[in-house]
Amino acid sequence: MNLHLFDQAITLSGEPNLRENTISPAYQNMVGPFGGVTAATLLNAVLTHPDVVGSPVSMTVNYLGPIKSDVISIKPRLVKNNRSNQHWLVEVYADNEMALTSLMIFGIRVESWSDTDLSFPEAPAVDELSSMPTDMLPPWPSQYDMRFVKGNPFAEPKSTTSEPSSESLHWASDKPARKLDFPSLAAMCDVFFPRLFVHQRAVVPVGTVSLTVYFHVAADALEEVESPWVLAHARAGKFTNSYFDHTGEIWSQDGTLLATTNQMAYYKY
Amino acid sequence: MNLHLFDQAITLSGEPNLRENTISPAYQNMVGPFGGVTAATLLNAVLTHPDVVGSPVSMTVNYLGPIKSDVISIKPRLVKNNRSNQHWLVEVYADNEMALTSLMIFGIRVESWSDTDLSFPEAPAVDELSSMPTDMLPPWPSQYDMRFVKGNPFAEPKSTTSEPSSESLHWASDKPARKLDFPSLAAMCDVFFPRLFVHQRAVVPVGTVSLTVYFHVAADALEEVESPWVLAHARAGKFTNSYFDHTGEIWSQDGTLLATTNQMAYYKY
Repeated sequence: MNLHLFDQAITLSGEPNLRENTISPAYQNMVGPFGGVTAATLLNAVLTHPDVVGSPVSMTVNYLGPIKSDVISIKPRLVKNNRSNQHWLVEVYADNEMALTSLMIFGIRVESWSDTDLSFPEAPAVDELSSMPTDMLPPWPSQYDMRFVKGNPFAEPKSTTSEPSSESLHWASDKPARKLDFPSLAAMCDVFFPRLFVHQRAVVPVGTVSLTVYFHVAADALEEVESPWVLAHARAGKFTNSYFDHTGEIWSQDGTLLATTNQMAYYKY
Repeated sequence: MNLHLFDQAITLSGEPNLRENTISPAYQNMVGPFGGVTAATLLNAVLTHPDVVGSPVSMTVNYLGPIKSDVISIKPRLVKNNRSNQHWLVEVYADNEMALTSLMIFGIRVESWSDTDLSFPEAPAVDELSSMPTDMLPPWPSQYDMRFVKGNPFAEPKSTTSEPSSESLHWASDKPARKLDFPSLAAMCDVFFPRLFVHQRAVVPVGTVSLTVYFHVAADALEEVESPWVLAHARAGKFTNSYFDHTGEIWSQDGTLLATTNQMAYYKY
């Protein structure tokens, strides 16, 4: 059986409280692995833990520095078990140094009054757009089919007539297509190029230091999502003193808000 | 000397690696303390740690459950010391059970290219608005002067003509006025009523489970902010299966974006 490269990348071995993961060369970024797959791997360590209850509600991953070793050790710890939710604290080591920290909340997603305040962005259909070429980029973008509506930092020159914008909107799916699940949704929350690239059309050193994902689908609702495509929308708030933030939304192809996500990233510019 | 109630609330005793804090009755919420002051207290434990370098960049606090004890024990741990930033992991115990977890990043905020992509919201001046009455509310809102432009869940009836909205915009300052610093800015990032109250005008059980703050000012720039007033803007993305998210911005009175903030909250409705 040929596992999808994504499933290979998030594969875990070892005990539930001490997992090992071999860093996938397919998802490397400029320096170290793509943060989205790293987040997915950590989420997978909790999703497959025998003590887990419910589905993911919230996840924050802090990236302590670029991971240079081939293997990471993941230590998930259930720090609080409530009646309707669980809090997990995950420490990750590379070469015996702490490399990642993560806080996760899992919850029993009961039926409740529901409403989506954000609006599904207007975008041409997937078939009407062409795939972004990835041959000049590091490995990870080649594992996705990305089709930009706006804000492709590599295709469009910086506007000389309007204010520069950090906004981007694009369709994305795993390549080859893969049914969405929580790990791939977590990874999709990082399937963006840095807002600084988008705003300035400048490719400079940038690294995410913290990523937060809020999940807006329960396990059964995510299971019902058939399309592998998501519509990914993001913008920055402010760039200053070598850090900028990023706010994004991940929508299913039929217009369900699957996740909202935020990042803080370091830059040198 | 009479300390401001906020300074009393975030006061720490003990060793740098094991701090104690007495929960302030002045900042109590419906069940347990106001999350903003709790976040400020944790931030204070790192800000006053002898090993800290730089100013706060990012902070995530997870609330494991309502704190019922009078005293909490705070264990800040520097888990990675990089050339330009630091990663901290903070565990907090109440009655020997883990009650809070926090991840923080501190950074040396060097000069860099800067730009604010978000726009300062249009709002009447502070003096043109009246203070929200707080006498029917739990203690914490009485420690702030809040002046709503829109989205006061206790004052305006739910619109019958337009779509219900989770957006709110209000001025806020400590009461009595207190110069902004990082702890008070962190607390201001939670100086909101739950988006569900705003959207539905329904006061139902709600509790923040995770709060993230991204700081957009270096220490010297915050020091220069003279006004104690901030303009606080927030909206929800989606309410579903008993959790909703919240995205907010905190602006100084003169239009500097001081912080962006996100929450995930539990609700029963």
